[in-house]
Amino acid sequence: MNAVSFIVPVQEDIEEVEALMRAQAQNYHSDLDAALELLISAGGKRIRPALTLWVGRMLDAPHTELISLAAAIEMLHTATLVHDDLIDGSLLRRGMPTLNSRWSPGATVLTGDFVFARAAKLAADTNSVEVMGLFANTLTVIVDGEITQLLGDRCMANRDQYLRRIYAKTASLFETSARAAALLSQSPQSVSDTLGRFGYDIGMAFQIIDDILDFVSDPSTLGKPVGSDLRQGIITLPAMLYAQAHPTLLEAQALLTGECLEDEDQQNKLIDLIRASDAIQQSHAEAIQYVENALAELKSLPETPERHALEDLAHYIVDRKL
Amino acid sequence: MNAVSFIVPVQEDIEEVEALMRAQAQNYHSDLDAALELLISAGGKRIRPALTLWVGRMLDAPHTELISLAAAIEMLHTATLVHDDLIDGSLLRRGMPTLNSRWSPGATVLTGDFVFARAAKLAADTNSVEVMGLFANTLTVIVDGEITQLLGDRCMANRDQYLRRIYAKTASLFETSARAAALLSQSPQSVSDTLGRFGYDIGMAFQIIDDILDFVSDPSTLGKPVGSDLRQGIITLPAMLYAQAHPTLLEAQALLTGECLEDEDQQNKLIDLIRASDAIQQSHAEAIQYVENALAELKSLPETPERHALEDLAHYIVDRKL
Repeated sequence: MNAVSFIVPVQEDIEEVEALMRAQAQNYHSDLDAALELLISAGGKRIRPALTLWVGRMLDAPHTELISLAAAIEMLHTATLVHDDLIDGSLLRRGMPTLNSRWSPGATVLTGDFVFARAAKLAADTNSVEVMGLFANTLTVIVDGEITQLLGDRCMANRDQYLRRIYAKTASLFETSARAAALLSQSPQSVSDTLGRFGYDIGMAFQIIDDILDFVSDPSTLGKPVGSDLRQGIITLPAMLYAQAHPTLLEAQALLTGECLEDEDQQNKLIDLIRASDAIQQSHAEAIQYVENALAELKSLPETPERHALEDLAHYIVDRKL
Repeated sequence: MNAVSFIVPVQEDIEEVEALMRAQAQNYHSDLDAALELLISAGGKRIRPALTLWVGRMLDAPHTELISLAAAIEMLHTATLVHDDLIDGSLLRRGMPTLNSRWSPGATVLTGDFVFARAAKLAADTNSVEVMGLFANTLTVIVDGEITQLLGDRCMANRDQYLRRIYAKTASLFETSARAAALLSQSPQSVSDTLGRFGYDIGMAFQIIDDILDFVSDPSTLGKPVGSDLRQGIITLPAMLYAQAHPTLLEAQALLTGECLEDEDQQNKLIDLIRASDAIQQSHAEAIQYVENALAELKSLPETPERHALEDLAHYIVDRKL
C-alpha cells in the first residue's frame, strides 16, 4: 500500500491547506514568515490533514471550515514538534535542520508559541465552539504527555504507561483530526464517536510503527541512531515485549525494574537483541490489531469511495516503510 | 486612588476566577498542578480579570461564561510570563522565584504550553466563536511583539516602534479583556468597539507607567536593577523623551542612532540623568492622556456604578506606586 490512493484525490485540498498554513505568518515579523516556510516545506506526509479531509468529504462538512480545521491540526502538530525538538536538542527532523539547530532557544520557544497561536486562530475559523474545545483539550493532553515523559515514567517497561504515552503523543491528535471533521458536518453523535474511535485506533497503530522503526530503520533514514528512544530511557513496545520474554537477561531485568541503562555497550547489546527478536513482529501484530479495530469501526458506515480512502489510509499506516 | 474601590465589589468573582484557574491542572501531571498553584499564588493585581468582570457586569454578560473569559485572559497572561521569564533568564517576578529559576528549561517551556492550552480551553468555554477568534489573534499579536523585540528593534529610540511594542506587550490584552466581555453580552457592535478602545487606552497607560517604574522604583521592590530595560537595549518612553531633549549628549546620541550602550558606566550615567529629568513627568503626562481618552470613551455609556468602577480602574492605573 502506498500513499497515492488516499493522497492524490485530496491533493488539491492539501495544497489549499498548506497555502492557508503559509499565509498565517503574513503581516508578522519576517523571520516568523521564514521560519514557518521552513517548517512547512520540510514536509511530512500530511496524514492528519488527509484524515480530516476524507472524514469531512464523507460527511459533507462545509469546505472552507474543513480546510481551516485541517490547517489547524497540522499547525498544532508542527508547533509541538518545534518545542519537542528544542527540548530534546534534536538537530535534524525528516533529514532537515530543525529550527533550534539554527535559532536561539528564545526565538525557537516564541516561534512555537506563534505557531500555536495561529493554530488556535485556524481552529476558531471553523466557527465551531465544539471543535475549539476539542482542539484545546487535545493540546492539553499532548503537553501533559510530554511533561509526564520528561519528568518521570522513564526506564520502566510498563504497558499502561506506554499506552497512555502513545495516546497523548499521537493517537489523541489523530482522534481529534477525525472527530472534529465529523463535528463540522451535521452527522449524529454516534457517527462522530465512530470516527473518533477510528482516528484513535489508527493513531495508536501509527505510533507503534514509529516505535518499531526507531529500532529497525537505517539510521541515515531516521536521522538519529538506532534505538534512540531506549537510549533516552523511553521504553517502547518492542523493548517491553523483548524484556518480558527474556526476564533473566541482565539488560532486560533493568527495564523490568525501571533501572536506567546508562552504559552504552549494554544499550547497544540490548538494541541488537531487540532488532533480531520476535518482539518486532509481535509489536507489528499489535499495530495491525489496532488497524483491524479501526476498519471494523468503519463497517457501520455506508460503503462509499470516501470510506474506501479511509480504509486505504488505515492500511498504509501499518505498511509504511517496513 | 487605591485598588479597593474597583476590586472589593468583584472580589468574590475574582476568587471564582482564581479557583477556576487552579482547577485547570487537576487530572494532569502533579507537577503541573504544583506549578500552576505557584504561578497563581504569586498573585498579581488581577487587573485584567477585574476589567473583564466590570465590563461584563455593566452589559449583563452571562455569569459563567464571563468567569471563564476572565480566567482565560489571566491564564493567557500567565503563560506569556512563563515563557518570557525563561527567555529573559529572570529569576524573580513580583519578588517570588520564577518557574525557570527552579525547573529545567524543557519543563518550563512545556508548563507554559500547558497554561496556553488551558487558556484556550477556558476561552472555548465562553461558547463564543467571536471571543475565541479574538483570543487567538491577541495571542498572535503578543508573541509577534516578543519576537520583534527579541530579533530586532533594539537600542533605537523610535516612537512608532515603542507604541507598537507596548500595544503588543500589554494594550492588546487589555483591549481584548474589555472587548471580549462586551461580545459575551448582547450589546451592539458600537458598545464593544467603545469598550475595546477603553481597554486599549488604559493598557497603553499601564505599560507607560510600568516603563516609568523601571526607572524610578526602588530596585528591591522591582526585583531587578533600575533601568533594566535600557540595559537590555529596550528603549522606553522616558529614555526616548530624554534622548530627544538632549541630542548633544553622547549617551543620548547612541539612542537616537540605534547604537547599543554596552558600557555599564555609560548606562548608569544615562539612567541617573533620566531619573532626575523632566522625561519622567512628561512620560507620566502621556499616560494620563491615554487615561483621559479612556474616560472620554466611557462618556457615551449610561452613568452606572459599573461605569464608575471602570473609571476608578482607569484612574488607578496612572496613580499606582508613583
